[in-house]
Amino acid sequence: MKEFVFGVDIGGTTVKLGLFTTDGTLLDKWEIPTRTENGGSAVLPDVARSIEDKLTEKNIAPEQVEGIGVGVPGPVDSDSTVHKCINLGWGVFNVKQRMNELLPAIPNVAAGNDANVATLGELWQGGGKGYDSAVMFTLGTGVGGGVVVDGKIVAGKNGGAGEVGHMTVNPEETVPCNCGKCGCLEQYASANGIVRMAKIMLTECSTPSALRSMDSFTSKDICDLAREGEEMAVSVVDRFGDYLGRAMSFIGCTTDPDVFIIGGGMSRAGAVIIDAITKYYRKYVFHVSANTPIAIAELGNDAGIYGCARMVIG
Amino acid sequence: MKEFVFGVDIGGTTVKLGLFTTDGTLLDKWEIPTRTENGGSAVLPDVARSIEDKLTEKNIAPEQVEGIGVGVPGPVDSDSTVHKCINLGWGVFNVKQRMNELLPAIPNVAAGNDANVATLGELWQGGGKGYDSAVMFTLGTGVGGGVVVDGKIVAGKNGGAGEVGHMTVNPEETVPCNCGKCGCLEQYASANGIVRMAKIMLTECSTPSALRSMDSFTSKDICDLAREGEEMAVSVVDRFGDYLGRAMSFIGCTTDPDVFIIGGGMSRAGAVIIDAITKYYRKYVFHVSANTPIAIAELGNDAGIYGCARMVIG
Repeated sequence: MKEFVFGVDIGGTTVKLGLFTTDGTLLDKWEIPTRTENGGSAVLPDVARSIEDKLTEKNIAPEQVEGIGVGVPGPVDSDSTVHKCINLGWGVFNVKQRMNELLPAIPNVAAGNDANVATLGELWQGGGKGYDSAVMFTLGTGVGGGVVVDGKIVAGKNGGAGEVGHMTVNPEETVPCNCGKCGCLEQYASANGIVRMAKIMLTECSTPSALRSMDSFTSKDICDLAREGEEMAVSVVDRFGDYLGRAMSFIGCTTDPDVFIIGGGMSRAGAVIIDAITKYYRKYVFHVSANTPIAIAELGNDAGIYGCARMVIG
Repeated sequence: MKEFVFGVDIGGTTVKLGLFTTDGTLLDKWEIPTRTENGGSAVLPDVARSIEDKLTEKNIAPEQVEGIGVGVPGPVDSDSTVHKCINLGWGVFNVKQRMNELLPAIPNVAAGNDANVATLGELWQGGGKGYDSAVMFTLGTGVGGGVVVDGKIVAGKNGGAGEVGHMTVNPEETVPCNCGKCGCLEQYASANGIVRMAKIMLTECSTPSALRSMDSFTSKDICDLAREGEEMAVSVVDRFGDYLGRAMSFIGCTTDPDVFIIGGGMSRAGAVIIDAITKYYRKYVFHVSANTPIAIAELGNDAGIYGCARMVIG
């Protein structure tokens, strides 16, 4: 095992880079802009140059670097082939091959989907530290996720593994999700979804609520009111927990992970949502898996660079 | 790689044994009784003696045997430790260690849960041949299952992986499943479950059906009538397909396997159930995974010995 490793998390506007020791300490992190023009052809050359500059700055020889892990916002094969990354303008090509051309001195390169990689990062040094298998739910604008079994990312035949936000938890739903289907978890358990659900629930009852007097409200408003014990907000969070806990129970009956991890902006609500999720997870899952811990993500936006680095450590 | 391998599938009344070549040809299969008295202490010695007898009969030296795979009707750790097998009278112990004491000349031993092992068998030489990752649903008295990712059985933290029959697909259900929860897939999609569901559906409508004139009917009766196009039976199989296709879609959004395999007695109904399952799987799953094939198991009761053998081949 060499001494250093790079994690490179490519987003639609910025690329986050991290220099780690191979035992998991983040030594330095920085960002460069993602230049998506011309089919994103400058993105990986920019990354390679930035890594070379960092090696010079830190006086590290390429031979001291174990490898470079790359996270990408789109489907990635287990052999590091990207299958179109709309946000980056990329078509189909092999990230490892391209990086090997750009930086032949550091041949060990692997690429993974950003949500899967973030799960691996949380498992390595975050909310799932100490475990081998995890499933993460990232509750942001939508609901993303990642599945790791025995330390390895499960990408799936079609890159569809970890698309937990698109489990059809409500087959009666008539309003379509962004994906085109109706009744996806994302329509109830994302930051936008819980607000949408609260608005509908408010029209269906006359329970008093501070939410009724707000011009607009956010998932944070709902969770704050629920934490204070407001009846209406508590019932919204309870229904959120029912959908998310149920989705989690399906995974408990499939891969039975060591730990579930809740990430994304909504995870900042903490115990008030974890309690609601846990209540329903335990209700719905097969009894042997009822006590699986549900942890909160700890690495925030750094989960990606951690997971990228972890990918190339044997 | 050596030339031969044994698969040993231990059931509550008989032990099935198979002698294979390591390239997957079944050379011989036979059964011995499972002696469950005295905490099942005779089971593994009986197995060891039966293997020694077969080696003598076939004039095979232990050095020509790659290993022995053992399937067990209960939860098994990835290190071959069994955690109570009620049907065999077994407590907690390590199958590999015990077999190594009994048959030191063949040290490569691994144990797995019978449903998981059967999935591996179907993937190796049955309905999933040619693929690396599969999830099997075994539709018998109950609904069992197994999950294999990249050729490896996923056992789960608590041995709960593959407990797909206990996904809560109907949270409104008030009648409990054998497991104690309400609304498990097994209550609608097993051979017993579809009969139970049909009886309820018959009381809820006045649609004519040949089922109404039968003293009792089986899942086969329902599937036979549906195949003939009887409206009532078609609607029962359609609802069965809705529940099972939905459960399958949750797995599509989790591990996104190469193939789904339908086994167990009900799988003999063939296209009439596969079509119903496929219709709803495609409706509910995230679009990237919509075309995952749904195959019928091919090895019947031999799936276990095939999978056991496969477990010990590197």
